[in-house]
Amino acid sequence: MTSLLDAPTAIPPSPASSLRCRNCGAEFPLIAIHACAECFGPLEVAYDPAILGAVTREQIEAGPQNIWRYSALLPVGQDPATRVTLDPGFTPLIRADRLAAELGFTAPVWVKDDSANPTHSFKDRVVSVALTAARGLGFESVACASTGNLANSVAAHAARNGLQATVFIPSDLEPGKIVNSAIYGPRLVAVDGSYDDVNRLTSELQESDDFESTAFVNQNVRPYYAEGSKTLGYEVAEQLGWRLPPQVVIPIASGSLLTKVDKAFSELVKIGLVPESDWKVFGAQSAGCSPVATAFDNGHDVVQPVKPTGIAKSLNIGNPADGPYALDAVRRTGGAIASVTDDEIREGIALLARTTGVFAETAGGVTVAVLKKLVESGQIDRNAETVVLNTGEGLKTIDALSVSWTHRIDPSLKSAREAGLVS
Amino acid sequence: MTSLLDAPTAIPPSPASSLRCRNCGAEFPLIAIHACAECFGPLEVAYDPAILGAVTREQIEAGPQNIWRYSALLPVGQDPATRVTLDPGFTPLIRADRLAAELGFTAPVWVKDDSANPTHSFKDRVVSVALTAARGLGFESVACASTGNLANSVAAHAARNGLQATVFIPSDLEPGKIVNSAIYGPRLVAVDGSYDDVNRLTSELQESDDFESTAFVNQNVRPYYAEGSKTLGYEVAEQLGWRLPPQVVIPIASGSLLTKVDKAFSELVKIGLVPESDWKVFGAQSAGCSPVATAFDNGHDVVQPVKPTGIAKSLNIGNPADGPYALDAVRRTGGAIASVTDDEIREGIALLARTTGVFAETAGGVTVAVLKKLVESGQIDRNAETVVLNTGEGLKTIDALSVSWTHRIDPSLKSAREAGLVS
Repeated sequence: MTSLLDAPTAIPPSPASSLRCRNCGAEFPLIAIHACAECFGPLEVAYDPAILGAVTREQIEAGPQNIWRYSALLPVGQDPATRVTLDPGFTPLIRADRLAAELGFTAPVWVKDDSANPTHSFKDRVVSVALTAARGLGFESVACASTGNLANSVAAHAARNGLQATVFIPSDLEPGKIVNSAIYGPRLVAVDGSYDDVNRLTSELQESDDFESTAFVNQNVRPYYAEGSKTLGYEVAEQLGWRLPPQVVIPIASGSLLTKVDKAFSELVKIGLVPESDWKVFGAQSAGCSPVATAFDNGHDVVQPVKPTGIAKSLNIGNPADGPYALDAVRRTGGAIASVTDDEIREGIALLARTTGVFAETAGGVTVAVLKKLVESGQIDRNAETVVLNTGEGLKTIDALSVSWTHRIDPSLKSAREAGLVS
Repeated sequence: MTSLLDAPTAIPPSPASSLRCRNCGAEFPLIAIHACAECFGPLEVAYDPAILGAVTREQIEAGPQNIWRYSALLPVGQDPATRVTLDPGFTPLIRADRLAAELGFTAPVWVKDDSANPTHSFKDRVVSVALTAARGLGFESVACASTGNLANSVAAHAARNGLQATVFIPSDLEPGKIVNSAIYGPRLVAVDGSYDDVNRLTSELQESDDFESTAFVNQNVRPYYAEGSKTLGYEVAEQLGWRLPPQVVIPIASGSLLTKVDKAFSELVKIGLVPESDWKVFGAQSAGCSPVATAFDNGHDVVQPVKPTGIAKSLNIGNPADGPYALDAVRRTGGAIASVTDDEIREGIALLARTTGVFAETAGGVTVAVLKKLVESGQIDRNAETVVLNTGEGLKTIDALSVSWTHRIDPSLKSAREAGLVS
């Protein structure tokens, strides 16, 4: 303990005060550790309440149109010169009146479209924060274990910023996600196994001398990385005119995103940037990988690992690190968690596309399909304003779909006539 | 003529004053025609110079973070309630220092990344303007002939805004572009022929009774549609701090985008929003479809149609409507036009990706490869600031690439060791 507390911190002055264990509350300095030295629990960034409390709406609104407008609420990146980033964030919050009508809502439904980020998923938020922290902490190269989107984002960030990257993915990922990492020129390591296997391997690799100076964005700098997801919650509140939505639907892979959006909402209330109001957090999983939904259904606090299957590959984490914390946030706020089949996922993608013009990847299809399911079961209230997160881009998972043209003709009026396009 | 001049105009008050023939200068009211009734020349929107001259930087900067901040310089959309849009534009202008270094530039190089638009190409700009005009003119449904990106954008705009869309594409398009239209639920008509064949067919169809109330965005409302591309030029100038870049490299399909960026620069000087300065416009085509580059090389004013081949499908227009005007803009400003092979296009995509983190579709690869070629030939000056337009998204054309992982291993340290990842 003493050695850790005495270790130098390379993070520049920020509102972050320490790393705090989520289990036992032990505190550690802002260094590159992610597990508690006392109890092995996960560490989270803690902030100086006095510094957070001084942040104003005006200060944020005067910032750039990206995640760094919230740098006063993040552990790193206060000085623009320190950022290792693609400047993600401030993605559109789209009012989805046609979707709301189709689902029978009387209240507004909004789609927060994170496919508008630079590499077209919410992962750009966490990677920008992780790599900024990594540089501050003196790491020389970057790596990750990924279900695809994280790999795309790490490889692109490394390319823009001239860093060496090593990216580990399951070898059965969608071609779009493989190409969209390879094109940036990282060491791209395809592992014949599940994401959980990849994750275990990289946990071992980071202990080796060869990776001593490598930041594994979702492992040895995970506490910083995870904070990036808070910006999604901040943006929803700001874009609604500085208030919280009564209901929000969020996909669950590791569970980190869900817990961080909930944390962002709590912080905004605590520091007075939004009026106090109740919100319910709803979680979305696929039937092929529903360990958190299953624990929710069974009233368990512990998440039983599963072997993932199905088309929602970016959510296929069978042993979700933040599963218990996601369960807690959902239960505490009075929400629910549900899972949907591959066919329902495809229908969710199509429903969102034809009512909003947003083309989501399979994870977004999961979220929309769960919205539909929970509306139909009455667990989501049609009379309460609802925000749905689309975390990724449909172009990355076209293999999961089977849609094509409605007519095929020759370039002639005769052929157009035979096809019924013209009389 | 009299009947046309007397026709009612449904466009709300705007700085646009008339449609003017680019060939003979004849003027027409702001209705749905695209060819001159006198000489069959193409029509372009003309503006009231007094209204344009009153526009200020402050007025623009106070607008939304999308194309509509320039509505005072566009024919339609002044009243937000009239817009039929996905709110595209204000995409990133990325300083590309690593690309500049690799090409030996001493001056800054910038990438204007229009893959950040809602459907990930610059076409969202023209479609938003076209459909806003179409609604103003009383059309009830929308259609287009497309090489892919336009189809994606029209289908998505129609979905968000609840319009019926009919989209015509060549049947040999990339799967990404076909799925990304089909998912929005339009009538998607695959035509066994080239884009030029599709274009001829839709020209005939729009004369039929069945399509009487249909706006073909790039045909019967083309003069409005084309104006949307001006916003790309406005944004580059504003993002550079209200000044023009000395050199800009633009892909040529129909040639419309290039001519409109040049028009935008001219307008900004004329109305005093930027200081007067010289700029050179460079055009980029693929070797598989280089009718404008060929005319440039041969010193011709007329563009000889070709039968397109090659991977840059979004640029595969063999008979480019605005080819002569693109030639004129390039020659007048002292630029050049070049073409590049499919292998050079692939290298251009990789070069851009590994130096900037931007993953461009084949059209962007064409532009970067032409930049490289013209730098090496000395026609582009390494000592002059240069902007390169990336008009579309790499995820739409992954079939053209053959990149994959660099290592494939089992999930074990032993396997990682054998692959040389760890010692």
